[in-house]
Amino acid sequence: MSNLTINAERLWDTLTETAAIGATPDGGIARLTLSDEDRRVRDWLRAQVEALGCTLTVDAVGNMFALRPGRNPDLKPIALGSHLDTQPTGGKFDGVLGVLAALEVLRTLDGAGFVTEAPLLLVNWTNEEGARFAPAMLGSGVYAGIYAGDWAEARQDSAGTSFGAALDAIGYRGAAPAGSVPFGAMFELHIEQGPILEAEGAAIGVVQGVQGMRWFEVTLEGQSAHTGSTPMPMRRNALLGAARLVEAVDAAAQAHAPDAVATVGHLTVTPNSNNVIPGHVFLTVDLRHPQDAVLDALEAALRDALDRVTVGLSLTGKLQVIARTAPVAFDPDCIASVRRAAEKGGHPTRDMVSGAGHDAAHVAGLVPTTMVFVPSAAGLSHNPAESTAPSECAAGAQVLLDAVLDYDSRHAPAA
Amino acid sequence: MSNLTINAERLWDTLTETAAIGATPDGGIARLTLSDEDRRVRDWLRAQVEALGCTLTVDAVGNMFALRPGRNPDLKPIALGSHLDTQPTGGKFDGVLGVLAALEVLRTLDGAGFVTEAPLLLVNWTNEEGARFAPAMLGSGVYAGIYAGDWAEARQDSAGTSFGAALDAIGYRGAAPAGSVPFGAMFELHIEQGPILEAEGAAIGVVQGVQGMRWFEVTLEGQSAHTGSTPMPMRRNALLGAARLVEAVDAAAQAHAPDAVATVGHLTVTPNSNNVIPGHVFLTVDLRHPQDAVLDALEAALRDALDRVTVGLSLTGKLQVIARTAPVAFDPDCIASVRRAAEKGGHPTRDMVSGAGHDAAHVAGLVPTTMVFVPSAAGLSHNPAESTAPSECAAGAQVLLDAVLDYDSRHAPAA
Repeated sequence: MSNLTINAERLWDTLTETAAIGATPDGGIARLTLSDEDRRVRDWLRAQVEALGCTLTVDAVGNMFALRPGRNPDLKPIALGSHLDTQPTGGKFDGVLGVLAALEVLRTLDGAGFVTEAPLLLVNWTNEEGARFAPAMLGSGVYAGIYAGDWAEARQDSAGTSFGAALDAIGYRGAAPAGSVPFGAMFELHIEQGPILEAEGAAIGVVQGVQGMRWFEVTLEGQSAHTGSTPMPMRRNALLGAARLVEAVDAAAQAHAPDAVATVGHLTVTPNSNNVIPGHVFLTVDLRHPQDAVLDALEAALRDALDRVTVGLSLTGKLQVIARTAPVAFDPDCIASVRRAAEKGGHPTRDMVSGAGHDAAHVAGLVPTTMVFVPSAAGLSHNPAESTAPSECAAGAQVLLDAVLDYDSRHAPAA
Repeated sequence: MSNLTINAERLWDTLTETAAIGATPDGGIARLTLSDEDRRVRDWLRAQVEALGCTLTVDAVGNMFALRPGRNPDLKPIALGSHLDTQPTGGKFDGVLGVLAALEVLRTLDGAGFVTEAPLLLVNWTNEEGARFAPAMLGSGVYAGIYAGDWAEARQDSAGTSFGAALDAIGYRGAAPAGSVPFGAMFELHIEQGPILEAEGAAIGVVQGVQGMRWFEVTLEGQSAHTGSTPMPMRRNALLGAARLVEAVDAAAQAHAPDAVATVGHLTVTPNSNNVIPGHVFLTVDLRHPQDAVLDALEAALRDALDRVTVGLSLTGKLQVIARTAPVAFDPDCIASVRRAAEKGGHPTRDMVSGAGHDAAHVAGLVPTTMVFVPSAAGLSHNPAESTAPSECAAGAQVLLDAVLDYDSRHAPAA
């Protein structure tokens, strides 16, 4: 590895500078994908990478790729980046840190006149958040061939504006066909969005992959009736059934500790009146684990619980699968480069599996990929109070630089 | 007892006739208190009782009292009646049956030229439902001195119209001070609004009193967090706590079978998103039982469960008392008259305690009072599908007549 050191202050200043684009009074950022704020931060990024002599390519879904040449033009670029869009009530770090740390890596190399073997490719993926256009991770999904470009173009926001029209409106529909900009590996630095690193005093999360996820919608139907005049044995209380499902979903995850997580996040009661026994409940279930076999077990536990609850309480139940994504395992070589980079910096590490989805999960199906996590204070994310300290951001950017250089040095053909 | 028989067909025709006032397309009635529909049904009632030679008095809160003289003007009248207002999505029987059966009793006596010892007093109470102006049972509450007349007048509906202005608008602010129209006992016929009579094949519910009721609002506060990246042991899941409270509330009622009922009817989750662990839940608890000591035990069980749940899940909990009404025991003599009347008719009876509140519960604090219940198909009420068969309505009206005559004959001074 080199002895190059990123400029922590410059990175923090850059985070602060771009946080002004879409800044909210509570310290967060509202920078929805393809909004005017998104255009402004994209224009800013374009200026920065062009100032470093990079060549910017924008593809048909607005993904931005800034190429810094390497010594060997036959090698595929190593990509590094994340996304600059935010949730409507987003924070200053989610996605943004990954792009600005990649910029800091390029600036550091530029300042030192350091040329890598393979070219480097800074990436800003379009619409990672999915907050304006569903689904999330749309730009990387089209890049990876998971979604068709036409289908993506037709996605609409709540005002009826299509994704394609929004691209045109901000001038970021590029000439390059989606998926046509090649790279041979990708490293994505991101905040953890969870509490583990902080709780365990680890500075760097060495990410092994992304959990598989299964989402369900459940409806429970009983009989609305008067709370005062309906004896307990004659009730068909849908909320009591829902309560038992909430408990069963939690217990299923506990039974597959420590990696399983399972949650009822949304629950709606009808008619939802003080003095009416609930006749109807709608709820969602979110099951996650790094292994498909365990996801199967969690799903079986959910289905068993639903059967038990409906029979026991004379309810009818309906379960619908809303989404299933398979677990993703990141590339061992990329992971090894991250681990060596963290060791070089003397950072305590924690091997972990991402609970949230990321662009890297799509890209991992195409080329060797991994992620680097840094702590999120109190695990907060998608929240103006989202916080990662300057020193933590700097550690992440340094590990990103060193991991990329490590990977580059090991994957260049022997001279 | 007499051998007078009410006219079942006339009663049913009258139910059908008045159901047209405020009729909804789905077979129900929308006749909110002091609305124009309420004025029309009041005008109709006035015409009917005046046709029978009764004297109508309207008091300051719109309660209507139709006096049919008895043989002995020194005796206080025996009141019989209920209410003609409905819920916005009300049925054809709740309240209405009690007033129209009382009218049928007067018509039957009139047809036979039968004169009771005490005068009879048909009553139509204002705003039993509380659907337009809170609280429910406002007219009888002012009559009984539970609410001040000024306070009642100032109650506002959702459009900002005061109860007093609404009385004036339909011309039913009477000259008689509230509480000034005396009576010595009251019998109220009502639908059960529950499933017990139908389930047990009983035609007549001999009502012993009204359950006491305690209402609570509970908030549970945890920490909203990402469902994917927050390990199970680090969660503070407010919905899991709420689920345990729902189960504990149900279990508390089961532990005091068969008379206790306990329900969480309203539950709201925040932020209520598929992939966010719920950080906040608001819910209501409704506890009912005929005895204060058992209500104390139910409340203690609720408070214990809240402590257990908040400690176990690292939540904070807040419990607020919204309403407490003491159990009401009806008058043994009135109850005995109902029982004899039902026996005379050969009706299977069921002693029961009302789970819902009624005007009779307010009146019972002043004078000997009881109620007669008839079956509600499937226990439905406050619902256009609310249904009681013509023969069941007739049985109730006949028992009302016979109970009033029985009570009258036993309470007149020896000739």
